Amino acid sequence: MRRLINDPYDVVEEMLEGFCRAHNDYVHLYENDGRVVVSNLAPVKDKVGVIIGGGSGHEPLFLGYVGENFADAAVIGNINTSPSPEACYNAVKAVDAGRGCIYLYGNYAGDVMNFDMGAELAAEDGIRVETVTVTDDVYSSKNIKDRRGVAGDFFVFKIAAAKAAMGGDLDEVVAAASKANDNTRSMGVALSSATHPATGKPMFELADGEMEIGMGIHGEPGVRRGKLQNADKVVDEIMSHILPDLPFNAEDEVAVIVNSLGATPLMDLHICFRRVAQILDDKKIKIYRSFVGPYATTMDMSGMSITLMKLDDELKKMLDYPCATPYYIKK
Amino acid sequence: MRRLINDPYDVVEEMLEGFCRAHNDYVHLYENDGRVVVSNLAPVKDKVGVIIGGGSGHEPLFLGYVGENFADAAVIGNINTSPSPEACYNAVKAVDAGRGCIYLYGNYAGDVMNFDMGAELAAEDGIRVETVTVTDDVYSSKNIKDRRGVAGDFFVFKIAAAKAAMGGDLDEVVAAASKANDNTRSMGVALSSATHPATGKPMFELADGEMEIGMGIHGEPGVRRGKLQNADKVVDEIMSHILPDLPFNAEDEVAVIVNSLGATPLMDLHICFRRVAQILDDKKIKIYRSFVGPYATTMDMSGMSITLMKLDDELKKMLDYPCATPYYIKK
Repeated sequence: MRRLINDPYDVVEEMLEGFCRAHNDYVHLYENDGRVVVSNLAPVKDKVGVIIGGGSGHEPLFLGYVGENFADAAVIGNINTSPSPEACYNAVKAVDAGRGCIYLYGNYAGDVMNFDMGAELAAEDGIRVETVTVTDDVYSSKNIKDRRGVAGDFFVFKIAAAKAAMGGDLDEVVAAASKANDNTRSMGVALSSATHPATGKPMFELADGEMEIGMGIHGEPGVRRGKLQNADKVVDEIMSHILPDLPFNAEDEVAVIVNSLGATPLMDLHICFRRVAQILDDKKIKIYRSFVGPYATTMDMSGMSITLMKLDDELKKMLDYPCATPYYIKK
Repeated sequence: MRRLINDPYDVVEEMLEGFCRAHNDYVHLYENDGRVVVSNLAPVKDKVGVIIGGGSGHEPLFLGYVGENFADAAVIGNINTSPSPEACYNAVKAVDAGRGCIYLYGNYAGDVMNFDMGAELAAEDGIRVETVTVTDDVYSSKNIKDRRGVAGDFFVFKIAAAKAAMGGDLDEVVAAASKANDNTRSMGVALSSATHPATGKPMFELADGEMEIGMGIHGEPGVRRGKLQNADKVVDEIMSHILPDLPFNAEDEVAVIVNSLGATPLMDLHICFRRVAQILDDKKIKIYRSFVGPYATTMDMSGMSITLMKLDDELKKMLDYPCATPYYIKK
């Protein structure tokens, strides 16, 4: 095991303690629930509350995106485990400013169940909570509604949060999040597993020199497993799944994420980005904004994912809307 | 090998192509030298030119810190190899605005030789170039002037660049960089080597379950190698070397970096930060700003380093001075 931790059963609490101390200019733990990271500005007067969350181990997702004009709170689960219904409910109590709240998270069964229970508890208090789940992982299902959420979370959260910050009501924030999700597609490649802190072992086996294209961020099976190919070939294969799925067409404008799953260096990500740009140039698809780095990880997993979001003037405006959080600032 | 690259001999050029495309709102390659990454704002009228650089493989160091009110250019070497004297000279030509330039880089023999030759070439053109090398790595030598530069680079570059952006002349920028360097101490722990792209092999051997405390970012030998301990013990040992070295004393204010060497997750970094904060609290040393993430890496190396910079009012003002680059934004 190559991890710097203490007792494996304390990793989430100790991470939260360190996180809220390191970034105490942005966030704090909610006084009534140690699994709710709250923006120091929340509740923001007259603003729809934006609540994100999910299992731990994907940092900077989710807690790294709590702050000004982005998420108002993140609800924290254990490693690869959804947050509790109580924590989902407590996040609403922490951030609701009288205009309702939106839950935004990747589409996983446990998260859906627990966030839905949180929304029901909030409804008993007369607080309206709506939900948009992110479903950007192209290979995870033919049926879009059944797809998982991966790094596209970042785009959907950013767009919804900007709409809320611009004064949108809950229906408008839901519409913005849904539009962003409808326009976003992702797919990744894993070159290794992550080390689960509780066992000290890989979450699954993937030999050195092998890759699995389309693998999910918890190790869900992908398109195929095979010998590691060079970066250009890997990018070509991933893009061949992403581009026709929406589809993305000539003259479209897109935002791009080339995301590290944890251990893949910025050097490699930029070599991959170079190929993404070549392909988009060939297809006359215009790159409006690029994001290269660790946006949604699986701890020390080696690998990379590509996300494209098709833009229109409204989405561009929301993507560019200023925000400030520990792990993403837009001036 | 778990790397996403093409021909190993093209990694730097392909990275630079991808980097300058992804971040073309901030930087471009200098037209006369493909190893000089230049800010789109350079040369900045009436400002001292700030030039950073070194070998590749430490991203986001160096090129990730080129932009507004930070470095004006980064000079790029091959993996673990200093940039050429010509590239160091060309960077001066690219950014000099008539007030001279400063070279800032980690203290390694090859870098010193080549940057010095660059400064001599610039002197023949009548351009004054001064140098401050970063020497923050506590364990690398008893003699401070012989020490290596590691993640403390980030603080020294930030301070010097802010002084330049605030209108300081070259002597003042040199003084600010020197003061930042004098006040900065670092030390790290490696849990694995990095994979050298040319060989596909680890740069050195470090078995799973072992650690080397005090190891340099190119694999230079450390204090001791032994069985991996828990995060708190590792942090305790590193802090026991850093704190007495300056020394850092009660009532001091510090900025802290807990830096990933590449593959270590944000979860682990925050668990380490928690312990750093406990130790500083115990010693009544006040944390003014915290930085947790990959600031100076060695590609896919697993490990972490801790950097402390002692602050006064002037350093605080320069640390907080707004800037915007692809990998660091201060609002």
